[in-house]
Amino acid sequence: MSSRIGRLLSVQIFGESHGPAVGVVLDGLPAGLRLDMEAVRAHLRRRAAAGSAIATPRREADEPRVLSGLKHGVTTGQPLCAVFENANTHSSDYAFLPDRPRPGHADYPAWVRSAGHDDLDGGGHHSGRLTLPHAFAGAVALECLRGQGVRVAAHVLSVGEESDRPLDALAPDMDALEACRALPVPTLDAKAGERMYQAIVEARAQGDSLGGEVEVAAVGMPAGWGAPYFEGVEAVAAAQLFSIPAVKGVAFGAGFAAARMRASAYNDPYDVVDGRVVTTRNSAGGLLGGLTNGMPVLARVAFRPTPSISLEQRTVSLSRMEPAALSVRGRHDPCVAVRAVPVVEGALALALMELWLERRATLPGGNA
Amino acid sequence: MSSRIGRLLSVQIFGESHGPAVGVVLDGLPAGLRLDMEAVRAHLRRRAAAGSAIATPRREADEPRVLSGLKHGVTTGQPLCAVFENANTHSSDYAFLPDRPRPGHADYPAWVRSAGHDDLDGGGHHSGRLTLPHAFAGAVALECLRGQGVRVAAHVLSVGEESDRPLDALAPDMDALEACRALPVPTLDAKAGERMYQAIVEARAQGDSLGGEVEVAAVGMPAGWGAPYFEGVEAVAAAQLFSIPAVKGVAFGAGFAAARMRASAYNDPYDVVDGRVVTTRNSAGGLLGGLTNGMPVLARVAFRPTPSISLEQRTVSLSRMEPAALSVRGRHDPCVAVRAVPVVEGALALALMELWLERRATLPGGNA
Amino acid sequence: MSSRIGRLLSVQIFGESHGPAVGVVLDGLPAGLRLDMEAVRAHLRRRAAAGSAIATPRREADEPRVLSGLKHGVTTGQPLCAVFENANTHSSDYAFLPDRPRPGHADYPAWVRSAGHDDLDGGGHHSGRLTLPHAFAGAVALECLRGQGVRVAAHVLSVGEESDRPLDALAPDMDALEACRALPVPTLDAKAGERMYQAIVEARAQGDSLGGEVEVAAVGMPAGWGAPYFEGVEAVAAAQLFSIPAVKGVAFGAGFAAARMRASAYNDPYDVVDGRVVTTRNSAGGLLGGLTNGMPVLARVAFRPTPSISLEQRTVSLSRMEPAALSVRGRHDPCVAVRAVPVVEGALALALMELWLERRATLPGGNA
Amino acid sequence: MSSRIGRLLSVQIFGESHGPAVGVVLDGLPAGLRLDMEAVRAHLRRRAAAGSAIATPRREADEPRVLSGLKHGVTTGQPLCAVFENANTHSSDYAFLPDRPRPGHADYPAWVRSAGHDDLDGGGHHSGRLTLPHAFAGAVALECLRGQGVRVAAHVLSVGEESDRPLDALAPDMDALEACRALPVPTLDAKAGERMYQAIVEARAQGDSLGGEVEVAAVGMPAGWGAPYFEGVEAVAAAQLFSIPAVKGVAFGAGFAAARMRASAYNDPYDVVDGRVVTTRNSAGGLLGGLTNGMPVLARVAFRPTPSISLEQRTVSLSRMEPAALSVRGRHDPCVAVRAVPVVEGALALALMELWLERRATLPGGNA
Repeated sequence: MSSRIGRLLSVQIFGESHGPAVGVVLDGLPAGLRLDMEAVRAHLRRRAAAGSAIATPRREADEPRVLSGLKHGVTTGQPLCAVFENANTHSSDYAFLPDRPRPGHADYPAWVRSAGHDDLDGGGHHSGRLTLPHAFAGAVALECLRGQGVRVAAHVLSVGEESDRPLDALAPDMDALEACRALPVPTLDAKAGERMYQAIVEARAQGDSLGGEVEVAAVGMPAGWGAPYFEGVEAVAAAQLFSIPAVKGVAFGAGFAAARMRASAYNDPYDVVDGRVVTTRNSAGGLLGGLTNGMPVLARVAFRPTPSISLEQRTVSLSRMEPAALSVRGRHDPCVAVRAVPVVEGALALALMELWLERRATLPGGNA
Repeated sequence: MSSRIGRLLSVQIFGESHGPAVGVVLDGLPAGLRLDMEAVRAHLRRRAAAGSAIATPRREADEPRVLSGLKHGVTTGQPLCAVFENANTHSSDYAFLPDRPRPGHADYPAWVRSAGHDDLDGGGHHSGRLTLPHAFAGAVALECLRGQGVRVAAHVLSVGEESDRPLDALAPDMDALEACRALPVPTLDAKAGERMYQAIVEARAQGDSLGGEVEVAAVGMPAGWGAPYFEGVEAVAAAQLFSIPAVKGVAFGAGFAAARMRASAYNDPYDVVDGRVVTTRNSAGGLLGGLTNGMPVLARVAFRPTPSISLEQRTVSLSRMEPAALSVRGRHDPCVAVRAVPVVEGALALALMELWLERRATLPGGNA
Repeated sequence: MSSRIGRLLSVQIFGESHGPAVGVVLDGLPAGLRLDMEAVRAHLRRRAAAGSAIATPRREADEPRVLSGLKHGVTTGQPLCAVFENANTHSSDYAFLPDRPRPGHADYPAWVRSAGHDDLDGGGHHSGRLTLPHAFAGAVALECLRGQGVRVAAHVLSVGEESDRPLDALAPDMDALEACRALPVPTLDAKAGERMYQAIVEARAQGDSLGGEVEVAAVGMPAGWGAPYFEGVEAVAAAQLFSIPAVKGVAFGAGFAAARMRASAYNDPYDVVDGRVVTTRNSAGGLLGGLTNGMPVLARVAFRPTPSISLEQRTVSLSRMEPAALSVRGRHDPCVAVRAVPVVEGALALALMELWLERRATLPGGNA
Repeated sequence: MSSRIGRLLSVQIFGESHGPAVGVVLDGLPAGLRLDMEAVRAHLRRRAAAGSAIATPRREADEPRVLSGLKHGVTTGQPLCAVFENANTHSSDYAFLPDRPRPGHADYPAWVRSAGHDDLDGGGHHSGRLTLPHAFAGAVALECLRGQGVRVAAHVLSVGEESDRPLDALAPDMDALEACRALPVPTLDAKAGERMYQAIVEARAQGDSLGGEVEVAAVGMPAGWGAPYFEGVEAVAAAQLFSIPAVKGVAFGAGFAAARMRASAYNDPYDVVDGRVVTTRNSAGGLLGGLTNGMPVLARVAFRPTPSISLEQRTVSLSRMEPAALSVRGRHDPCVAVRAVPVVEGALALALMELWLERRATLPGGNA
């Protein structure tokens, strides 16, 4: 059940990169949520990054075929299934599989796990192609949360050595985040994005790839969503974010920098503004012990460089059990962090959606 | 259901800091696993850090009363429940609650979430006291994994500005990790630990506290544990690790540094050694796309500084909705990262235990 | 994870008949639900049936020790754990185990399942003793539902050949059900209960035991709780009811009789009464396709006779793998259906509680 | 998450009767299980009963399009999704919806639950059409279990007043069950099936419909599958069986008859035959306290009559809140029990598959 998550909102993805289709089933959506399918498509187009010189040349329509759960654009409260056909597959690019697994990719352990039965072409079920149905689910969650006054948006914080300016923790500029979606590399500082773009183009020209970071913010949640421990916002969001292929690190608020701080500098003092409890710092990234405190939620996500590169690498031949060389042709992004921006937004939105439903279920006000 | 986790091995913790007891129920353990209760107790003593000048002065026996699931020291295959009595509680230290919530702590959102019904004394269910049953569950998982040839061990990687040397990613010295457990601050480099100790003593003397990092390694798993996406090792382990109070960041292998790397430097080349597939680097921290690749699993966990400090802080009076000052007496660790070392080991062990059971359930070899 | 159930309200039972204690953890309760602990104790006393000539002579205080989750008698929204000590155990009565498994009891398959490691004394985790924490959980659910205007009550419908009159499906007399709880055998027709009592006394005198049926009703739910398929009221309630040891059949509304009917006689016609949609028959037992329709929910539960009897039975010696004889002394109820009445009520209440929470989580009224 | 079930093997169905398609995702299948797709299709054809005079005239190809999880006919260990297009829909037959809900059908509570947003045409997600993906999942489970030496087969035990002879509990004739699948009404006694056929034809001619019972057997499981309480075979199987639309009762072994028995007549004595522990009766239907005991598992399932009939019925107009009459044209089976036979087999197989995986995960043999 590796590809399913969610206790209140179940998200089940399926499909292989070179199979007939990929898709997702969302179960647990309330009835009566209007989905703006144009907004959903726009979200998926950002992930597709079609035509961008720094995205994979693989071309897919990425048009969701909604098989169930929607009527007149409104959720019915029954499972919502969306399917995306795979059209543009080049399995011949993967003739080296399964014999010579790609360094940095799941080929080898997937082959072991399945005793050779897994479909590895194009990465199979492990492919970044699966972020398409994941992003669709995320887009649905984003639409639902919008109806609750919650906004989620992200930008590329760094690519290799180039960095964008980080968000203001107390008041992340959500409008600016949404505006920069039009850029080839969505950054608050357009110049930073251009430098990142150049760095990516260069790395690719050298047969190499780059890692990067995405920073994401969510605003509009009241205090008290989430729970301590295993279903805290951090735990639920991290499970979502680490599910995105290539993610190696997740941090909230001050994150790893918090480890170098003293409480006197880290703790977020409270104040009352306009009759509302707020904090005057936001080191915690809006999260205290698994719970939202009403301040903006901020997270950073680290992506490793794309493993498939054309530079020759050392691998092994599994049939001969001897060293071998490998140079991957295929079609790959030279920096997955860029196209991952909407996927990260969606992943955080799915976590928040889960906790919104949980909050509704456990709202106090029974008989006491 | 905030305090339960696990699909195959269910871990349910319960209790409040100043309630009668805290405890845990483990359900899904195979029958026939021998638990060395002395090893379990030793694990819990490391968390207790009783007598250490840098640990909370709260004294508890922390003796598990096993109510079920064990017979002659061997699991029966039925739910295993362990309970720990709370004896040494000073609720008077928390007279400021719920009116003046502590900055950095869950008091305020927990009060909102429960409409005032949650028990906040000593942190209530949000208290670090709950890491005791969590650590017990972790100790059980460590014992079970040991029987599978898996070892898990951690050290304090940094406290404030002081750092230990990191583990060798290809061959973490597990013996050294186990040996350093005897130190007040478990570090590979004893001098580093002493400097950390001094830093903590100083911070406390100043009414302040420090953050820190824990690095953890697990060795002995074959390739092929885990799964892509939502039940990948990263996702399952991160949910466990972010459930530990005070954790703000989790990273695997090269972690956030991976975001600054090129694939040519990051990717782990394969080789064949003694008829076994290995990698000659381990940037991935033993994890590819959610799956173990047979190399050591490495993770880093960032802890924020303890929020409860005696330095005066700005908070609000919730009854008057106006600013207020707060200086927390109570009994607190001036750096939670130190005592968290066994908790981190246990959390990773619980994740691996879950995936070991999942691996057994889905092992290929049916009818094909 | 055999002893846990519930997606929104997790119920985890633990303990063995002759171990130190049995107990339960409830996770997912909203904060702010007042529990009338006297009502809970009264519920548990009905299950205990202490002093009744037709109940087991085992005497236990059955006093819940609430370890967590309650403050001033009100739920905190954190896990609620209750523990019951075992005091009155006679393991010597079970010297025949595990060698000579009791016919009709789980001894043999439990021994196989655990490779001999399970604790079988007094039935171990399989014992009816575990219905005590289950009944506690049920009592909590009954209290919570009462706050929502939902009442659940049951009676003994039959014991052996003796029968009580069935409930009126359109208007089950809940007051009469609650009133008859004071009887040794709770029946609507007190004379029927007396005949059942005599039949049980006779069966026991002959070293034998009897089966029986319990009929349960729930009223007060609006239309629209539940869901189609796997989380329909029937599926969720049946999983609860079949978890009660000794249950061999569960039916809703007309149940098996529906199989002999035509739709013209079975279907429940709709009508409008006082501006409310009702049905003028209730063959469906208030349930259509997994959903409540606002009419009373009715179910029948069949209990096999208690397997432990003093009459000599044929079994085998597992050590010698040869036939053997067995006459069980121990302390057993000669008809479990009688004491099961509150357990059945609690099981149905737990199912309805789960679906009440689910209904809250998925209530329409988002953005459409 | 109403349409998902399974802890180890997740089964997620989706779709509406008159939507574009229905389908299912299976997640948790081991890699390396060969699926005989011809056997799967044969199973689905039995459910379709195309051309039978006693089945719905709705004609659908019911050809599964497998989108993922299979390679060369063998499971990859990744989610397996199958989709079935809906072609032959007549929504005009349902012009009375949602205003005049059909007695006995989920129309009214589904309308309430969704605040009018559910798609009710042809029953929507509540339709028997959803038993198609359910049956597909069941067929996969049957194939997998066959590889473990487990056979599952069922017959129509009764239709209205007509009955087939019940199975021999100690040795159900699985070959006979498989052979009778070719009959229009699969019965052990072909004459009984002919009488049932006539009864159904007659009822339909009168604008009415009939209920019926299905009896199902599973053989080949060793002792020790299952678990006590909430994941016992009975609980897991009942949740599956009650999910089939129209089911009102489920019983195992002697079932409701057990309630009228004494233990001396009910209990199954043990014996040793050919070095194997067996019972010499099988009142328990192979199940003791949630566990298989190695004997055949037997269950009976009661189906109410099809609610949609052409005889005029009393309903209400929801818009006018006043009584109304309804005569349903549509296309319906006059007795769902007949076509339900393969669905029941599949449902039981899915339950057993779940418990087989659970057994693998928790098999003793660790370190004790």
